[in-house]
Amino acid sequence: KRITVLKGDGIGPEIVNEALKVLEAVAETYGHHFAYQCMDIGGIAIDQHGTPLPQETIDACLDADSVLLGAVGGPKWDGLPGDIRPEKGLLGIRKAMGLYANLRPARLFPQLADASPLRREIVEKGIDFVVVRELIGGVYFGEHKTEEVDGELVATDVMPYAEHEIRRIVQVAMEIAKKRRSCVTSVDKANVLDTSRLWRKVAGQVAAEHPDVAFSNMLVDNAAMQIVKNPAQFDVMVTENMFGDILTDEASMITGSIGMIPSASLGDGTRGLYEPIHGSAPDIAGQDKANPIGTILSAAMMLRYSFDLCREADAVEAAVAQVLDQGLRTADSMADGCTLVGCRAMGDAI
Amino acid sequence: KRITVLKGDGIGPEIVNEALKVLEAVAETYGHHFAYQCMDIGGIAIDQHGTPLPQETIDACLDADSVLLGAVGGPKWDGLPGDIRPEKGLLGIRKAMGLYANLRPARLFPQLADASPLRREIVEKGIDFVVVRELIGGVYFGEHKTEEVDGELVATDVMPYAEHEIRRIVQVAMEIAKKRRSCVTSVDKANVLDTSRLWRKVAGQVAAEHPDVAFSNMLVDNAAMQIVKNPAQFDVMVTENMFGDILTDEASMITGSIGMIPSASLGDGTRGLYEPIHGSAPDIAGQDKANPIGTILSAAMMLRYSFDLCREADAVEAAVAQVLDQGLRTADSMADGCTLVGCRAMGDAI
Ligand SMILES: CC(C)[C@H](C(=O)O)[C@@H](O)C(=O)O
Ligand SMILES: CC(C)[C@H](C(=O)O)[C@@H](O)C(=O)O
Repeated sequence: KRITVLKGDGIGPEIVNEALKVLEAVAETYGHHFAYQCMDIGGIAIDQHGTPLPQETIDACLDADSVLLGAVGGPKWDGLPGDIRPEKGLLGIRKAMGLYANLRPARLFPQLADASPLRREIVEKGIDFVVVRELIGGVYFGEHKTEEVDGELVATDVMPYAEHEIRRIVQVAMEIAKKRRSCVTSVDKANVLDTSRLWRKVAGQVAAEHPDVAFSNMLVDNAAMQIVKNPAQFDVMVTENMFGDILTDEASMITGSIGMIPSASLGDGTRGLYEPIHGSAPDIAGQDKANPIGTILSAAMMLRYSFDLCREADAVEAAVAQVLDQGLRTADSMADGCTLVGCRAMGDAI
Repeated sequence: KRITVLKGDGIGPEIVNEALKVLEAVAETYGHHFAYQCMDIGGIAIDQHGTPLPQETIDACLDADSVLLGAVGGPKWDGLPGDIRPEKGLLGIRKAMGLYANLRPARLFPQLADASPLRREIVEKGIDFVVVRELIGGVYFGEHKTEEVDGELVATDVMPYAEHEIRRIVQVAMEIAKKRRSCVTSVDKANVLDTSRLWRKVAGQVAAEHPDVAFSNMLVDNAAMQIVKNPAQFDVMVTENMFGDILTDEASMITGSIGMIPSASLGDGTRGLYEPIHGSAPDIAGQDKANPIGTILSAAMMLRYSFDLCREADAVEAAVAQVLDQGLRTADSMADGCTLVGCRAMGDAI
C-alpha cells in the first residue's frame, strides 16, 4: 500500500513519525509492505513552494492508496491573506480528494475518565458517539468576498448545499450507525436557514430508506447543550461542515483527551485522509512533548477503512489501550499515579 | 413607563405573568407606574392574524419604552414554510427594533452549583461571563433561497457583515467589560471566513481604542472547547449571530440552570427587548410547571438597562437569590432537600 505522508507544521512531524513507527511494526508483524512518500502541506509548503498546497502534493495524494496527515498552521503564517494560509492547504486537499465525509469519534477512554470536564454521573453513563461531518460543502467552500460598499468594507460568505451533497453524507451516517447502535441524530438550524431546511428534508428521505435506524433531528443550539448535558444519548450525529467543526471540538473536549482523538475523511472510494483532530501546537513543537496517540489511532483508522485490515487496526487500538492501562501519559494527559513520557517514548511503547 | 408584552407560545404566557407580578411589586414598593400592552407574536399570531409578526405588534413595540417577551414556537407550526414560522416573528421584531446587541449572562448561581454538568473543580473556579451576540446580521439575515439547478434542489444562505455592524457590537462589548473585569474575547473563524477576517480586523481596531480592556481573539471551534474546559477564563465574549446562538446555549447549559437565564437585546437607544433564553417548552405548557426565573430576571435587566432603575433591579435579583436560598425550586431545577413549587408559587415567593 502506498501512503502519502503530510507531516505539516508544528508538532506535525514528530507525531507522524510515531505513527509511521507503529505502521512499520504492523507491517513487520503481519507481513505487509507500506511505502511512504512525504510531501509538503500548510505552512512548510508556503515556506518551500510559496503555496500551502503545491500541485505535486495534490498529485501524490491522488496517486496514493491513502494519506496520513499531522497538523497545519501556526502564528508564523497568521498574517497572510486568506488565499495563502496554511489552512487553505488542508481545505484544498480535502476538496481535491473529494473527501466529503469526516468521521470523528467522541469516545471516553475508561483510563482517562477523570480527565473529562464533566461530572462523574454524566461520564459514567458513557460517551461513545461518532460525529459524521460534511467536509467539502457549505460556507467553507461557497464564495468568499470582501468589497467596498458605500464607503465601508462588506464581507460575504456564501453557504450552499445541494441535495446530492446532503444525501451522500446522511447515507454514510446510516451505514456507520448500522455497525453501531443504529441511531442517527441529524443536526441543523432548520428554523432559520434554507440550507438546513433542505438538509432536514433530504435527511428525512434517506432515513425513510433505513427504517431499521432510529432517526431524529436536532437544532444545532440544542445539540451544543445536549453534548454537555447528556452525551450518552448520541450514537451517530450527522451535520454540515461548519456546525460539525464546532460540535466535534466540543465533543472531543468532553472526553477529556483531545490529544487522543483520530479522524478519517472519506470520499466515494476507499482512499482517505487520516489526521488527529488536534492542531499543530506550535508552542510545544520539537520538544518531544506532543501526544502521538491521536495520529496513531488515525493510522489505525486508515488500516480499517482504507485497507480493510481490521485485525491490524484492532491490534493498534489494543496496544494504545494497553499503554494507557500501564499508566504511560504524555504531558497533556498526565495524572496522579501515572508515568510521564515524551512523544517518542509513547510511540515506542505502543 | 410603557411596556409592550409579547407572551407568545407554550409556557410564554405563564412565565410572563409571573414577571408582570414582580414588576407590579416593584411599582408598588418604589412608587413607579408601568403600563402594559399585550400583543401577539409567533405561533399565536399565526393562528390569530395569519402572520407571526402583525404590523400592530411591530408598531406597539416601536411605540413602547421597552418590550418583555416570553417564548415562541411549538410543534403545531413546525411544518409551515420558512416565511411564516413563529421564529420569523422573533427574528422580525429584533430587526424592526434595530436590536443588534444581545446580552446573555452565563453565571452560576451558587445555590445551583450541583446542577452544573461540569466537575466541581471547574465549577469552583467560577462561571461568570456575558456573551454579547450580534443579533441582526450575518447568515440569519442574508438572502435565503432554494432553487432547482441541474435537476436537483440547491439551497443557499448568505452571510454578510459590514464594518459598521461589527464596530458597534464590539463597542458594546468593550463598554460592558469596563463595568466588569475588563476582558473581552472576540470569537470568529478567521482561518476560513471572509466575514470573520473582517470581524477580526474591525474588532482589533475597536480594541485599540480601549487600551484598558484586555482583548484577544479565539476561533469558534476552540471557544466551544474552552467553555467546557475552563469557563472561568471568560469575562465578556463577543461574536457574530450564528456562533453566538450556538455558544450561548452551550454556555447556559454549563451553569446547569437554563431556566434561570435572562437576556437583553439592545439597539442604539434605551429601548430593549427582554426574554429568557430558554424556549417555549410546549410539553409542559399550561401545567404551572415552568420556571419563571429567566423571565423575572429578564424584567430585572429591563429595569436596569432600559429604565435605569438599578436599585429596583438589584432588589429583584436579591429576591430571586433569597427564594433559591430558601430552597424553593421548580421541577426543572429540583434537587435533594429542596421544596418543589409551581410557576405561580415561585412568582409569588419572589
Ligand atoms: C484548520 C481548520 C480550517 C479546520 C476546519 O475548520 O475544518 C480545523 O478546525 C478542523 O476542524 O479540521
Ligand atoms: C428561535 C431562534 C430563531 C432563536 C435564534 O436562533 O436566534 C433562538 O435560538 C435564540 O437563540 O434566541
